[in-house]
Amino acid sequence: MKQLLKEIRHNPLLWLLVFVPVLFTFDQLKPESHTLLFVLSVLAIVPLAALLSHATESVAAKTGDSVGGLLNATLGNLTELVIALAALRAGEYTLVKASIAGAIITNTLFMLGASFLLGGLKHHVQEYNRVGARVQAGLLFLATCAMVIPSAVSEADFAAGGAFTRKLSVGLSVMLIAAYGLSMLFSLKTHRELFASAESGEAGEAPWPMGLALATLAGVTVLVALVSEIFVGSVQEAAVTFGMTPAFVGFIVVALVGAAAEMASAFSGARKNRLDLSVGIALGSASQIALFVAPVLVLLSYLLGPTPMDLQFWPGAVVMMLIATMTACLVTNSGRSAWFVGVLVLMVYLIFAMTLYMLPPRVQ
Amino acid sequence: MKQLLKEIRHNPLLWLLVFVPVLFTFDQLKPESHTLLFVLSVLAIVPLAALLSHATESVAAKTGDSVGGLLNATLGNLTELVIALAALRAGEYTLVKASIAGAIITNTLFMLGASFLLGGLKHHVQEYNRVGARVQAGLLFLATCAMVIPSAVSEADFAAGGAFTRKLSVGLSVMLIAAYGLSMLFSLKTHRELFASAESGEAGEAPWPMGLALATLAGVTVLVALVSEIFVGSVQEAAVTFGMTPAFVGFIVVALVGAAAEMASAFSGARKNRLDLSVGIALGSASQIALFVAPVLVLLSYLLGPTPMDLQFWPGAVVMMLIATMTACLVTNSGRSAWFVGVLVLMVYLIFAMTLYMLPPRVQ
Amino acid sequence: MKQLLKEIRHNPLLWLLVFVPVLFTFDQLKPESHTLLFVLSVLAIVPLAALLSHATESVAAKTGDSVGGLLNATLGNLTELVIALAALRAGEYTLVKASIAGAIITNTLFMLGASFLLGGLKHHVQEYNRVGARVQAGLLFLATCAMVIPSAVSEADFAAGGAFTRKLSVGLSVMLIAAYGLSMLFSLKTHRELFASAESGEAGEAPWPMGLALATLAGVTVLVALVSEIFVGSVQEAAVTFGMTPAFVGFIVVALVGAAAEMASAFSGARKNRLDLSVGIALGSASQIALFVAPVLVLLSYLLGPTPMDLQFWPGAVVMMLIATMTACLVTNSGRSAWFVGVLVLMVYLIFAMTLYMLPPRVQ
Repeated sequence: MKQLLKEIRHNPLLWLLVFVPVLFTFDQLKPESHTLLFVLSVLAIVPLAALLSHATESVAAKTGDSVGGLLNATLGNLTELVIALAALRAGEYTLVKASIAGAIITNTLFMLGASFLLGGLKHHVQEYNRVGARVQAGLLFLATCAMVIPSAVSEADFAAGGAFTRKLSVGLSVMLIAAYGLSMLFSLKTHRELFASAESGEAGEAPWPMGLALATLAGVTVLVALVSEIFVGSVQEAAVTFGMTPAFVGFIVVALVGAAAEMASAFSGARKNRLDLSVGIALGSASQIALFVAPVLVLLSYLLGPTPMDLQFWPGAVVMMLIATMTACLVTNSGRSAWFVGVLVLMVYLIFAMTLYMLPPRVQ
Repeated sequence: MKQLLKEIRHNPLLWLLVFVPVLFTFDQLKPESHTLLFVLSVLAIVPLAALLSHATESVAAKTGDSVGGLLNATLGNLTELVIALAALRAGEYTLVKASIAGAIITNTLFMLGASFLLGGLKHHVQEYNRVGARVQAGLLFLATCAMVIPSAVSEADFAAGGAFTRKLSVGLSVMLIAAYGLSMLFSLKTHRELFASAESGEAGEAPWPMGLALATLAGVTVLVALVSEIFVGSVQEAAVTFGMTPAFVGFIVVALVGAAAEMASAFSGARKNRLDLSVGIALGSASQIALFVAPVLVLLSYLLGPTPMDLQFWPGAVVMMLIATMTACLVTNSGRSAWFVGVLVLMVYLIFAMTLYMLPPRVQ
Repeated sequence: MKQLLKEIRHNPLLWLLVFVPVLFTFDQLKPESHTLLFVLSVLAIVPLAALLSHATESVAAKTGDSVGGLLNATLGNLTELVIALAALRAGEYTLVKASIAGAIITNTLFMLGASFLLGGLKHHVQEYNRVGARVQAGLLFLATCAMVIPSAVSEADFAAGGAFTRKLSVGLSVMLIAAYGLSMLFSLKTHRELFASAESGEAGEAPWPMGLALATLAGVTVLVALVSEIFVGSVQEAAVTFGMTPAFVGFIVVALVGAAAEMASAFSGARKNRLDLSVGIALGSASQIALFVAPVLVLLSYLLGPTPMDLQFWPGAVVMMLIATMTACLVTNSGRSAWFVGVLVLMVYLIFAMTLYMLPPRVQ
């Protein structure tokens, strides 16, 4: 605890932590001032993300980058799972699906591209273990197939009945979860040695002891979940104030803030030439959402939701996920990176963002 | 001949050969009992496939894995060609096209994926000659382009007239056959050395003498063709009994049984760490169907069929072939394999199978 | 000057230069005889292309293949820019877009494929620097995304209004130009060493002195632009005489003749085992058109055109650009080439050409 306070004293960024209690107070007192809550929650998420990043790195220092990346991705997505569950219970399936698709696209393109760029601005050429990146890209490809094929095969010839789509979604969900489980078995157990880190990252500051790191991880994750909920509640109305379309908010703003914690870790890893950690967080988080969070939500909708949810996405979202997956496949092919690779990936993301930002309303 | 009988005595699987005459007898006596004929023909195909596999391996032991794979693929597809010709003469173009698309998908995804999985369960990491795999994947890509582009370019702007599609199909067919011929020239003649096997396969049992192997190949191929014809005749009605959709039968069941012989060889090769043989059979068979069997059928339809057949496929089938080709391109990129690669490829196939299985009727 | 005349005396191909003044004379005297002007302009472009190729090689001998390729691509595209500007001022946006798409497809598929084939017929296996090829393929991928995503995202759910498309096109154009500028910074400045040529090309004839080479480049480029203008003016009516569809003329004939000069250089480089030069010209020219010429035309349409032009292409053209980009990505992955790779790429182009040639009218 003393070590944690010392850390906070020395890192000015962490002083923003003061906004966490401020946010909770205002949420109780003035739940209607959405724009204020929106700004406060963004200010509160930043230091929490930084704290989470530091704790993850301390754990990763002991477990290796692959496990560390998985741990970070899982904790980051826990937040998204919490939020999605709330929306699921309310039956807001459009919101659930937009947040799933947005998280996949943002993690695959923005987090990966910015990691390449930030790392590349400091290091001339960076190498990373491409076996790990390829397995993740392969998983994303599988998940995209599961979302593309049903609609391609069925819509091609006739208007598919809802019963067909729902039954198929359950089957595909079970299959995706199985694939995700087998990928864990493969990367953490049977072929563990293939996923060893390629680079010799910098040592960085002395890591925290394991106990403190794990306690921080748990505590901060809870705080992030609470702050995120306020953020989601305020973002739509604040967006109108700032003149943003609902599609832009759903796919870009929510996804960016929701992934702030993972991004802090990914970017910090890239700057320290530990690109395996960054790629592991970015693609690992995306594939976890696609192959675990999304199918679990489909299955849970039978228990919690008012009606069953299916895996059928808005066609524009499917195209974006498909292109994000192809970009990841192409880019991770070589296992090397320089700043311009990051620029290319970020530009693909920018195309999405610009399109969604300018899109006339009545889309989701 | 003595050696063949000895082989049969020692291999219990081959005792199933007794079902071959039983099947022919019942086909004469009770041509109406489709479910019985269906079960009997599946039972008869299994030992024939095993025999074919053993004969091919004996030939491959002398000619090298690439030529052996080509030989095996060609003999396996001969069966499909025989069946398709019968359907062609009857003018059943929907059936012909479904069997073509089904064979391409099944060979590319199921046969390749299961080879990777079965080989990977026995060997930690397997290597294979990626030059050969890439050429085959490139040929598949070309064939898929030939099927995608005409409909994409024409349907995009207006309903294409039948005359345009037919004329174009003839031109594309000639081009695909030329490409296939040139690929033979490339892989068997001018750049032969690039296709040499990468791995040091196990020696296996003593191979048969060449004469016996070739005689077995010829005789068993004829038997497989006869059995397959009965199988195709009974499968649709038997499928109704088992509650399967016509699309599932056409794309999955027929293709799986029709490729049983090649699969036996491919899987046996993978278990013996001769993955070049497996990849050669799987992708070689798929590209042969796409670039040789399909275009030859289009051209022959002018001589044999009641009306000309074109190369335009059901959009769902085109999407499935496109994804199968992309999967093959992505997977064969590295020239290495482990069990999880097989799982990924099989899962893509499973998505197809599930979708087709649940698809409401009125599709083909 | 003396050296130039000596060169012309020794190279029979350059005797065709006599058709340049002949063409200009007939264009003044008989501006209505389109078929004659068409034939004369093709005859005049060939020797100019040869001259341009020789001058470029002399420059490349001093600057290295990457810079030489860029220079060649830029000069070649200058012609296309000149022609497109004329069409832009006349408000013929369909023609402008067809020539952009046609140039991208022809450079990516025909020029690259023919270089691989011609080089491969002389050299058994050729190696080239795949880093450069990949960056160009990545740029093409980005440009294709910029053309695919807006229509995919918007058309998917509603008929996009013209205002949305135009505003988005301006944003995307600025982004593409920025990406192109950054790629220059990357390949010519920060990571220059990654783009060094892989092969040890033949020395070839003694290069011209720098002054003569640059003067020839400038002068011949102007002549090519003038001849091209006559060619474009006569091609449509001559095409009717030869029985070609407008789509075939726009995408194939104009693009082939317009790129004649670059092709001469690319093919000559391939024959001399300097495949980096060929790949640099082919893909460099394609990406320059996609990321520089096209967006600049969009922006200039606000100043010069009667109405603003957008980046939205005919769906068939988008599919062709997408497939051309995928082909480039797949093919350049290995950094090695043999004649059959060229055949594969050319066959993809042939599919486009056949489809456009047979396409019933009323398409562009």
